[in-house]
Amino acid sequence: MCRGMRGVETTKTIFVVGTKNSGKTAVAEYIVRRLSEMGFRVGALKHIHHEFTIDSEGKDTYRMRKAGAGLVVSFSPSEIALLRPPGDPKEEFNELSRKMADDGFDFLVVEGFRVMSQDLPSAFRILTCKTKAELDSLIPASTKTYDCISGIVSTLIEGYRYRRVPVIRFPEQAEDLVRRITGQLR
Amino acid sequence: MCRGMRGVETTKTIFVVGTKNSGKTAVAEYIVRRLSEMGFRVGALKHIHHEFTIDSEGKDTYRMRKAGAGLVVSFSPSEIALLRPPGDPKEEFNELSRKMADDGFDFLVVEGFRVMSQDLPSAFRILTCKTKAELDSLIPASTKTYDCISGIVSTLIEGYRYRRVPVIRFPEQAEDLVRRITGQLR
Repeated sequence: MCRGMRGVETTKTIFVVGTKNSGKTAVAEYIVRRLSEMGFRVGALKHIHHEFTIDSEGKDTYRMRKAGAGLVVSFSPSEIALLRPPGDPKEEFNELSRKMADDGFDFLVVEGFRVMSQDLPSAFRILTCKTKAELDSLIPASTKTYDCISGIVSTLIEGYRYRRVPVIRFPEQAEDLVRRITGQLR
Repeated sequence: MCRGMRGVETTKTIFVVGTKNSGKTAVAEYIVRRLSEMGFRVGALKHIHHEFTIDSEGKDTYRMRKAGAGLVVSFSPSEIALLRPPGDPKEEFNELSRKMADDGFDFLVVEGFRVMSQDLPSAFRILTCKTKAELDSLIPASTKTYDCISGIVSTLIEGYRYRRVPVIRFPEQAEDLVRRITGQLR
C-alpha cells in the first residue's frame, strides 16, 4: 500500500465519523500515529461544526485577520500555516485531495465530515458511537454502509459484527483498524 | 491600483521589516486595515524566526501533528487552516505569491522576512526601527534601499528624509503610507 505498490498517485481517505465524545479523536490519532510509524505520509483533517479559529485571540496573526486580511499566513522554521475563510466544502475537499496526491501523501485521516464521507465511495469509513442506540440511528439500511465500527461502543458489542458491519474493539484490536486500512486484513 | 487598473494579475508585496519592538505589527496592521477598507483583497504574512506553531497544545489538531501528520487541516464554517512543515522559504514564498495572484489578491503585507525582501525589487519596503543607530545599521549604502521609514523611529526624525529615504511618521502620517503603496503619492 506504499506509493510504489499502489502504483497510482492518489491519497486514500479515511473518515472517522460518529457522535460526540464517542472516541473519534482517539481513533483518528491512533491511525495517524501507526500509519506514520509505518513510513506512510499522512495528513489529518478535523471538521468542526461551529465557528472556530485555530489561531488565538491577541496574536499578531489574529490581529491581521480582524484588520480584514482574507488570508493570514504564519511562517516559521517549524511551520507554515495558512488561514482563510473556506469556500464550498466539497470543492475545498476535492482541491485538498488533489494537492495532497501531488505532494505524495498516502493517507488523509478525516475526523468528522460525515455528510462528505457519504459522497466518497472509495474512502474507508469508520463509525464511532457511545451506545447501540446511536449506532442504530446512524447505520443506514441501504447497501453502502460503514467499513467498520469502533470507538466507545465497540467494547459494548459481543461478536464481530453489528448490523453486518465489522466491529473492531478500541483500543484492544486497534491494530486491526490499520490492517484493514492498508488492505492486509479483509 | 485595483485589478482592472493594474491590468495584470499580480499581487503587490509590501514588506514591513525592522528591529524588534519597533512598530512592525502596528504598521502592518494599519496597512491591512486601510487597504481592506478601500476594497482591496489583502493577505497578511508574519515571519517568525523561532520554532512556532499557530496551534495550541492540547487541541485535537495539535495531537494529530504530534502523532506524525505531515499536514494538519482544521475545517470549520468560519475558517480553513492548513499547517505543515515549511519547505525552502524562497520556493514557498514564490508559490504563495502565485497562488494569491490566481485567487485575485491585490496585496500581500509581510511582517518581517527582511532577507527575502531584498530579492524582490518589485516589492514596497518599509523599514521600522526604534533608534537612528538602528536605522544606520540597517540602511545599506548601496543604491536600492527602502521605500520609506516608519514605526517608532519616524517620530524621532526631523525632516522628510533620512539618508535619502522618505520618513513617514506613524501614526500621524499613516495615510501617506497607503497613498504611496497604492501609487497616489510619489
